Amino acid sequence: MAPILRERKRLPPQSGYGLRIGRGEVLRIIDVEGEQVSDVMAFAADDLDDCLSSGRSIDYNDTIRFTAGHVLYSARSRPMFSVVEDTAGRHDFLYTPCSPDTFRIIYGNTNDHPSCEENLRAAFRSMGMVPRGGLPTTFNAFMNVAMGEDGRVRVDPPTSRAGDHIDLRAEMDLLVGVTACSAEMSNNYAFKPIVIEVYRG
Amino acid sequence: MAPILRERKRLPPQSGYGLRIGRGEVLRIIDVEGEQVSDVMAFAADDLDDCLSSGRSIDYNDTIRFTAGHVLYSARSRPMFSVVEDTAGRHDFLYTPCSPDTFRIIYGNTNDHPSCEENLRAAFRSMGMVPRGGLPTTFNAFMNVAMGEDGRVRVDPPTSRAGDHIDLRAEMDLLVGVTACSAEMSNNYAFKPIVIEVYRG
Repeated sequence: MAPILRERKRLPPQSGYGLRIGRGEVLRIIDVEGEQVSDVMAFAADDLDDCLSSGRSIDYNDTIRFTAGHVLYSARSRPMFSVVEDTAGRHDFLYTPCSPDTFRIIYGNTNDHPSCEENLRAAFRSMGMVPRGGLPTTFNAFMNVAMGEDGRVRVDPPTSRAGDHIDLRAEMDLLVGVTACSAEMSNNYAFKPIVIEVYRG
Repeated sequence: MAPILRERKRLPPQSGYGLRIGRGEVLRIIDVEGEQVSDVMAFAADDLDDCLSSGRSIDYNDTIRFTAGHVLYSARSRPMFSVVEDTAGRHDFLYTPCSPDTFRIIYGNTNDHPSCEENLRAAFRSMGMVPRGGLPTTFNAFMNVAMGEDGRVRVDPPTSRAGDHIDLRAEMDLLVGVTACSAEMSNNYAFKPIVIEVYRG
């Protein structure tokens, strides 16, 4: 039986969106035009102090390159998402979302600039939740971080092509924020939409 | 003028310690016997929702290998520590502290086992503070994480020798938790003490 699509949403360039996803549902993130990053943060519906954790996920999967077959864990070491399909193959789980400070520190830009941090905060506020402190490291779908042997990291253009997607199955009830990323370098200096779809399990 | 030592503390094997460090003071972490990891977490004294951030630090330093000259940032993008001296040269900022879940998931051990997560929590409790949720990624002094070209990570024995140290200058008033790490693999299967010293700026 084909999975049932219960929601489809197009995120305009440099925007964010918040949604609740039930255990067993699958969040599909589609890079509809190619070379567009999408930052993802999630909080446990039963414990809003528990959120997606890069460090726990790296530790339990023995990798910094996440793809189909990997499990993304929470800070309290609970499985949050299973990566069940991935046509892109390159994502990042090292960087925090771009923020006004990112644009000031990295780009020297102190003017108003959309950011994933602010868009994610607005997404969570839309669900009645205010994350404390700065957001932790997000799962950055399609973000292409190259790493040298010396540990130096560099943000390269995404390798994802139009239509590439990654499917994340929720392993618990979640509040999820997702963006069409706002940072120039991460998206090869062009901002595009992201489409998300949610399938019933 | 030589810096003034205001505190020296020996952390027994598999233990933790909490202390306040003022802006301008230098925290020296000494691997007194060699091959012993020390996990570090810090919260801003003026904002206990703001803590050390691996993701921000990686982003603003363009590296996952931190050493002298680098700045460790908070989740709110404020400088927390400057690394001012480092005789070891290999540390980790990818892994969360070992926890009861780590020992269950990685080692298959469900018996009681000391852990950095619990030792850090106790350290912060000793200062009247209870961190929310699971602890984020710690700065893991002397931890030696090897990375393959495919992104796979592996915990190797520390390269640090007896007496190696790293000096972290506080760039703001901080509540700091520090451990002598409790995980077998991280410490080449032997647990040793860590010595910390705090120098006035």
